[in-house]
Amino acid sequence: MGLPVEKITSLQNPRVKQLVKLRDRRPRDEAGVFLVEGYREIRRALEKKVALTELYFSPEWFLGENEPALIEQARAAGAQVFELSKETFAKVAYRERPDGLLAVAPQWRRALEELTLPAAPFLLVVEAIEKPGNLGTILRSADAAGCDAVIVCDPVTDIFNPNVVRASTGVLFSVPLVVAESTAVHTWLKAKKVRTIATTPAAETLYTAADLRGPLAIVMGSEQYGLSEFWLKNADLPVRIPMAGQADSLNVAMATIITLFEAVRQRSV
Amino acid sequence: MGLPVEKITSLQNPRVKQLVKLRDRRPRDEAGVFLVEGYREIRRALEKKVALTELYFSPEWFLGENEPALIEQARAAGAQVFELSKETFAKVAYRERPDGLLAVAPQWRRALEELTLPAAPFLLVVEAIEKPGNLGTILRSADAAGCDAVIVCDPVTDIFNPNVVRASTGVLFSVPLVVAESTAVHTWLKAKKVRTIATTPAAETLYTAADLRGPLAIVMGSEQYGLSEFWLKNADLPVRIPMAGQADSLNVAMATIITLFEAVRQRSV
Repeated sequence: MGLPVEKITSLQNPRVKQLVKLRDRRPRDEAGVFLVEGYREIRRALEKKVALTELYFSPEWFLGENEPALIEQARAAGAQVFELSKETFAKVAYRERPDGLLAVAPQWRRALEELTLPAAPFLLVVEAIEKPGNLGTILRSADAAGCDAVIVCDPVTDIFNPNVVRASTGVLFSVPLVVAESTAVHTWLKAKKVRTIATTPAAETLYTAADLRGPLAIVMGSEQYGLSEFWLKNADLPVRIPMAGQADSLNVAMATIITLFEAVRQRSV
Repeated sequence: MGLPVEKITSLQNPRVKQLVKLRDRRPRDEAGVFLVEGYREIRRALEKKVALTELYFSPEWFLGENEPALIEQARAAGAQVFELSKETFAKVAYRERPDGLLAVAPQWRRALEELTLPAAPFLLVVEAIEKPGNLGTILRSADAAGCDAVIVCDPVTDIFNPNVVRASTGVLFSVPLVVAESTAVHTWLKAKKVRTIATTPAAETLYTAADLRGPLAIVMGSEQYGLSEFWLKNADLPVRIPMAGQADSLNVAMATIITLFEAVRQRSV
């Protein structure tokens, strides 16, 4: 390290206590920040110019050799840097197998009107997703499929939950993400002349038979309840994925990636 | 319960100790059995006429009201039934949130030659998958896509790992599953005139441009290393999935489901 770094060894240190608290939503929202744990996730945050406020590291947990460079990069970008003892880091780490890096990043709120969209946008709308792991996986899928934005309607899980950050492998920082109410989203999509395709097992049309080109929003329901009445009634076209096996073999993350990549196929022809 | 049931309350009970041991592969293989935890998974095992040898239950953990009927069904099918105290069940449970049901089932070994295949089989071959959760998710995908069998080559993870059973949501019992060496699998596929399509980022052909109809085996590599030299050299056609975002946004389970459902689409036209 080029500069002297404060070393924290006490489990009673107020910063340590605050990091543990940030696993819960209310303290996160009150502080307006969230946790970013892990080399890959922090690297992606820095790549996307996210202004990390704090970076905590513990060399005894490091897995590779690139950590010091990342720490210097974070410091140069304005983060306060702290070294933690092995035991202290174990307490603040959220992961079972920590890699000795944990950052604090500012939360953000983006409005629908702030999205910059191409002429034929390709959007993913997810409704009331309950499990942070599913939301993170869905963000990865949207990134891989090249969605222009992901819109999270009426969220049950907080997009800044540590498990979302983790399951998204940091894609949270690169995919434009908006949280909004379903009614507002529907009105906005209508105004933008974006067609809405909603996946539901009750639909007659196969997802492969629907035209997924042009301005498009794919709408996915929640794990337990599927699509709400609102989207079932207001989506332009309900479609279904054919199922060969057990009725519940596809979870929402799997159904999402299947539908997204069919859209990619059609849109690239 | 119709019949008297032995109740186990001691953490030192040999059955309790054995159940904990069965989380590890060697004791599983030595005993020739594996753990099936949870209502849904046990129900599927019974549906598929798997001869559960033992069933452990603990009413204080039950989540619903159908557990007694399932227990009676297991007993009628020949399982030894034991009641555990709440604390004892907490020790043997593998899940973070147990539902009070844990069974022991016999392992099986199925050879390639034992597979009964249709004229144009639709197979999934996975090579050296490392993470049990990925293998379980892949089994779910194969079930949903209607694969005739899943062939696990040169496995790194044991198909009877509790996390495979769990992530597969019991589909392990319904999808025909064979473990074999890559060379034997390749020879067998050649003899059966099954085309092999291997997914690798280095391929020129897009997976959507390949003909995925007729006798088909989709071959997927491991999480960390991708396809082995053997399959890269011996597969009939390498294909790739187009990637818009971060290079690692698609994991092997996601790449598998995308490829499987493109095959489903082509095969249903």
